Amino acid sequence: LVEAAAGGDRAAIGRLISLVERGGETARQVGRLTFPNSGGAYTVGITGPPGAGKSTLTDRLITEARRDGHLIGVLAIDPTSPYTGGAILGDRVRMQGHALDEGVFIRSMATRGHLGGLALAAPEAIRVLASAGIGLVLLETVGVGQVEVEVAGAADTTVVVVNPGWGDAVQANKAGLLEIADIFVINKADRPGAAETRRDLDNMLDMSMTMGAWRPPVVATVASTGDGIAELWAAIGRHREHLEGSGELEARRQRRLGDELSEVLVRRLEARVHELDDGKAYQQVREGVVDRSIDPYSASDELLGRLGL
Amino acid sequence: LVEAAAGGDRAAIGRLISLVERGGETARQVGRLTFPNSGGAYTVGITGPPGAGKSTLTDRLITEARRDGHLIGVLAIDPTSPYTGGAILGDRVRMQGHALDEGVFIRSMATRGHLGGLALAAPEAIRVLASAGIGLVLLETVGVGQVEVEVAGAADTTVVVVNPGWGDAVQANKAGLLEIADIFVINKADRPGAAETRRDLDNMLDMSMTMGAWRPPVVATVASTGDGIAELWAAIGRHREHLEGSGELEARRQRRLGDELSEVLVRRLEARVHELDDGKAYQQVREGVVDRSIDPYSASDELLGRLGL
Repeated sequence: LVEAAAGGDRAAIGRLISLVERGGETARQVGRLTFPNSGGAYTVGITGPPGAGKSTLTDRLITEARRDGHLIGVLAIDPTSPYTGGAILGDRVRMQGHALDEGVFIRSMATRGHLGGLALAAPEAIRVLASAGIGLVLLETVGVGQVEVEVAGAADTTVVVVNPGWGDAVQANKAGLLEIADIFVINKADRPGAAETRRDLDNMLDMSMTMGAWRPPVVATVASTGDGIAELWAAIGRHREHLEGSGELEARRQRRLGDELSEVLVRRLEARVHELDDGKAYQQVREGVVDRSIDPYSASDELLGRLGL
Repeated sequence: LVEAAAGGDRAAIGRLISLVERGGETARQVGRLTFPNSGGAYTVGITGPPGAGKSTLTDRLITEARRDGHLIGVLAIDPTSPYTGGAILGDRVRMQGHALDEGVFIRSMATRGHLGGLALAAPEAIRVLASAGIGLVLLETVGVGQVEVEVAGAADTTVVVVNPGWGDAVQANKAGLLEIADIFVINKADRPGAAETRRDLDNMLDMSMTMGAWRPPVVATVASTGDGIAELWAAIGRHREHLEGSGELEARRQRRLGDELSEVLVRRLEARVHELDDGKAYQQVREGVVDRSIDPYSASDELLGRLGL
């Protein structure tokens, strides 16, 4: 499958991502095989509150990026969706204009039921796409839950989309989006309040103490008409140049790989503990702690002892 | 020491908290010994941006609570401080009025250099205080970093302090304080803008989708004069009654204990991996992943294999 995907076989790419979603040893096997040829994709995260127009914006960005000749992968991240396996979501319909374009691979991801979940599956799905020769991956999130923010924020360039209106900028703030934004988009900028939202965002950026050398630009767009999309695409290009020129791209990617190793390790160690005695050991010890009949330290001694550690 | 602390020996309490701060096997030993008699303390977290007046407010709350006859412990949580062991911080000077009161135990906590850090040390320090017969513990944070929000948010009642002014309410939002607040305080409410800040907070509470049955009241105070402190103390009492009456207090505490077990376990498993071959094994494998010469899955296989798992 990995060989077929490397040759551009779309069905193979889709099946590999399904395997990654499902987790477990097969997913790890895919991870081992795709890793060596997976350094080539630039990733752009697109996040923001529901209804901000992220799908339409992503659709327009695809058109813009295809003009530059990029092969494109789109992963729509939706941890709350009951559908997996590339099921057609309502939102995805807006990208149907690209359905016949062989240079665009669009896929929804919703991973449940295994430890680590999307935080581990998304980087792996990106590697599947990269190993298939895709040079640009757009990670679009459906909402702004913790996992979605984490996944979108781990992109090379993160675009945060809000709409005109005071509450929206505040909501963006509340969800921790200010920290992860490399570029802000005020979409539906033809509606009243766009200037105030720009001012609010500028104020928040001024107040932010965690700012580095890059100050996120604020781009106004109307995704439904295409207004501002070229400017957004140019801003993404400038951020990419900034990361590459400063050496920060490689530093960010190395940091993410190190974090991924820690996460993989911790999840697997946790799984080993939970699997002990078919899960009965952990359940029993946890109940003891919650009942206050055993303290958390003695409880973890007991579980570690059973693992021979 | 645990016996002496249970008898009310303040020096013993202080030394136990120092041991807890330091982490490691001794800290776990303290944890095992204090756990059985530690169910009796009600905890109130006090958090908000630097300069909001949290120390002065805490000082006033001590006076109010002492009037009701409570024995009180105060833990000032400062993950960034280089001082530990109950060193006198500038802020603490404001609580000096209680220095001679045998019924009040005040202590700064700043834990560095061991895995888990304050997120594990704070609940343990609370148990030290509880096992010494202290019925009310105030957890005051110095800033609003992730750890501080986590620690303050794990209290039975969490008080979020802001000041008049638009930016402050937004900052509170940004730091994730809206989610953890059981009570909002607008301190320095004699300054201009208090009414607007109240309106902003009410708007944010209206927008919040994660609200439960309890809607956080907004209390206006002027800590420097004592205005509003009785109202705040009454609001804390009402929240406590709400938690106790609804059974949520016990549910929250059980959830926290279960989370603590997971955290203790994961940290200890991580430590075991990091300790392998004096830390060289982990370092070497991590460098391999960051260099892209080995994938995270094969790397974690290797480390788990060395542990015999």
